[in-house]
Amino acid sequence: MQIAPIYQQFQITFKYTVHFTEGLFNLSNPLLRNVILEDRTEEAPKVLFVIDHHVAEAVPALVSDIQAYSQQNADAFQLVTEPVIIPGGEQCKNDPTYVQQVLDIINDHGIDRHSYIIVIGGGAILDMVGYAASIAHRGIRHIRIPTTVLAQDDSGVGVKNSINAFGKKNFLGCFTPPNAVINDFNFLLTLSDREWRAGIAEAIKVALIKDASFFQFIQENAAKLAQRDMAAMQYLIRRSAEMHVQHIGSGDPFEKGSSRPLDFGHWSAHKIEPLSNYRIRHGEAVAMGIALDSVYSHLIGWLTEAEVNQIISVIKALGFELYATEMTSHLDDASHPDSLLHGLQEFREHLGGQLTIMLLEKIGYGVEVHEIDDKLVIEAIKKLQTY
Amino acid sequence: MQIAPIYQQFQITFKYTVHFTEGLFNLSNPLLRNVILEDRTEEAPKVLFVIDHHVAEAVPALVSDIQAYSQQNADAFQLVTEPVIIPGGEQCKNDPTYVQQVLDIINDHGIDRHSYIIVIGGGAILDMVGYAASIAHRGIRHIRIPTTVLAQDDSGVGVKNSINAFGKKNFLGCFTPPNAVINDFNFLLTLSDREWRAGIAEAIKVALIKDASFFQFIQENAAKLAQRDMAAMQYLIRRSAEMHVQHIGSGDPFEKGSSRPLDFGHWSAHKIEPLSNYRIRHGEAVAMGIALDSVYSHLIGWLTEAEVNQIISVIKALGFELYATEMTSHLDDASHPDSLLHGLQEFREHLGGQLTIMLLEKIGYGVEVHEIDDKLVIEAIKKLQTY
Repeated sequence: MQIAPIYQQFQITFKYTVHFTEGLFNLSNPLLRNVILEDRTEEAPKVLFVIDHHVAEAVPALVSDIQAYSQQNADAFQLVTEPVIIPGGEQCKNDPTYVQQVLDIINDHGIDRHSYIIVIGGGAILDMVGYAASIAHRGIRHIRIPTTVLAQDDSGVGVKNSINAFGKKNFLGCFTPPNAVINDFNFLLTLSDREWRAGIAEAIKVALIKDASFFQFIQENAAKLAQRDMAAMQYLIRRSAEMHVQHIGSGDPFEKGSSRPLDFGHWSAHKIEPLSNYRIRHGEAVAMGIALDSVYSHLIGWLTEAEVNQIISVIKALGFELYATEMTSHLDDASHPDSLLHGLQEFREHLGGQLTIMLLEKIGYGVEVHEIDDKLVIEAIKKLQTY
Repeated sequence: MQIAPIYQQFQITFKYTVHFTEGLFNLSNPLLRNVILEDRTEEAPKVLFVIDHHVAEAVPALVSDIQAYSQQNADAFQLVTEPVIIPGGEQCKNDPTYVQQVLDIINDHGIDRHSYIIVIGGGAILDMVGYAASIAHRGIRHIRIPTTVLAQDDSGVGVKNSINAFGKKNFLGCFTPPNAVINDFNFLLTLSDREWRAGIAEAIKVALIKDASFFQFIQENAAKLAQRDMAAMQYLIRRSAEMHVQHIGSGDPFEKGSSRPLDFGHWSAHKIEPLSNYRIRHGEAVAMGIALDSVYSHLIGWLTEAEVNQIISVIKALGFELYATEMTSHLDDASHPDSLLHGLQEFREHLGGQLTIMLLEKIGYGVEVHEIDDKLVIEAIKKLQTY
């Protein structure tokens, strides 16, 4: 008996737009209304807002503004319940009760695939709520409103959603493009200096691996950015978001391969964060990771010393630390789960396949390697402590 | 300030093959080896087997056969641990500890995106393990080896994975195409008469809505199928699987719309199952749902009485029940959660958007409607009790 196989093949087109605005919930701002009108597949779909508690605290009028905006636009969408406020930050990805809380609300209010979940907050809550929206009913529409620099210039504009599990970042998740992303610059005014700064690391990262002129912009505007100049920040966010979006769309959006070029500086960042119990934020850890991998790139003879110094100067000028004590604990034992070097193995495991690490041949030009020399990493960390 | 939006658009091509074989783990059968060799992206990827306990019990040599096969093909893939046996059937979708068990194993053994999870069993465990594989590391490769008629001719060959939550079928899940499906007909020899029969309901369903000549085949072969004629069953499975695969690939694979034409007979089936505490199996409930919606189609003047009688005769000849007492509890109160009519609302909610139900204009030709008359449903159920 020989029965012919059946061959399945189909293509799915994914699309979404990243919008920029100020004052999204001003009654005169038609953006959110129009985004839903252009996307919806039924009359006045149900909408659930989930808000990061940091944002709700920083913008006390936000909930009432959303309610007023929704009331005025009741022909476009219907608020299914009052906006839900949930703790933001890494804790909402670490503690599975928050995903469960969002799923409970989805169930309680009969939120379906044609409804919208609109999440307002930092990258962590966008990840967590996006994950809940992705798995409920196999996918509810979701719109992301990132409120931090990091989320607006990088993590909020992509296709990944996740929570942490087994003490590992993003262990559980889905690739699910949002229906839209809306960057409202006014939220940046509420950030602490620390948050304002943190997201700049991802812009430095993408500039270093892809666009020397963008790195030059950051270098020339480092003082302005550190002093919270809004025009410089808007340019930085727009350009960084654009480069991230283009990279995703033209590359391997759902990461079938082993390569993740945008993760320059991230193998160590992903390890520094949990090692510090998330005392060190993602952007801060990325700044350390960029510094580390830049020095490493110099030690293997790629970047010149002048280039490394340039990179280190920019990172320092923005107010980042280059080093944390967590980077040197158990450093001589790569098999120890608390060793930074163990992060190389975890990084490989998350992506699977061959170890693939982006390094810098020169500023604006990243090249992937498949081997990392532990001894040179240790030397690079020592060097970091001297700057 | 007006900052230009960023437009993201990309396409992803999904493909997989449904293979047919007998004796998959015979050492002389190269199929599984070849499937992995053609698909793998690294040398000898890790493989985890998960087996439905029904199958492990019915085929006592299965675990040792898999181990011998894996040992012989150690150049193609490496067994990460001995095959894991997990309870199959709806309980593995109802109890979230089973998903957690699979995730624990994934974590413990460093199973990554380039590894394979191969699941052997009925539709429920394929759904549950496929879901775990979909969310871990945002997607581990998985190969499905369906062992029941239902899973081989319908549920195992598609792109859906899920578990139940909030007492609702498939509340949590993902659209994630498998890397391959392998239908091994030998597993059918281990089925009870009840399981053998149950999966035929989905073939009847797809025949009724799309292919009158396939329905004629089932009608002419009803006695043979009831007597477990393997050649008739192989034809039925191949044709039903093919129609399901074609439908998915040419339609709306990830169900962005509100329509699900293949769900003929399913709105009530999805309700009958939980109402019976899963005493009634999916295929058995689908047979009842087909009978119900066929009678309903006649009551609204579509199917002729002769056609309905033909359909009812085939369903009865195969040994299915047409009616269960659960169908009439609280039937006069559609708002009661235990009323069959409440299932219409749940069905709409799961898909979202407008209620869309497939009915039969004639045998082999289904047409969607957006309204269902509760009174006629009640009349149809009464009629079912008279056959």
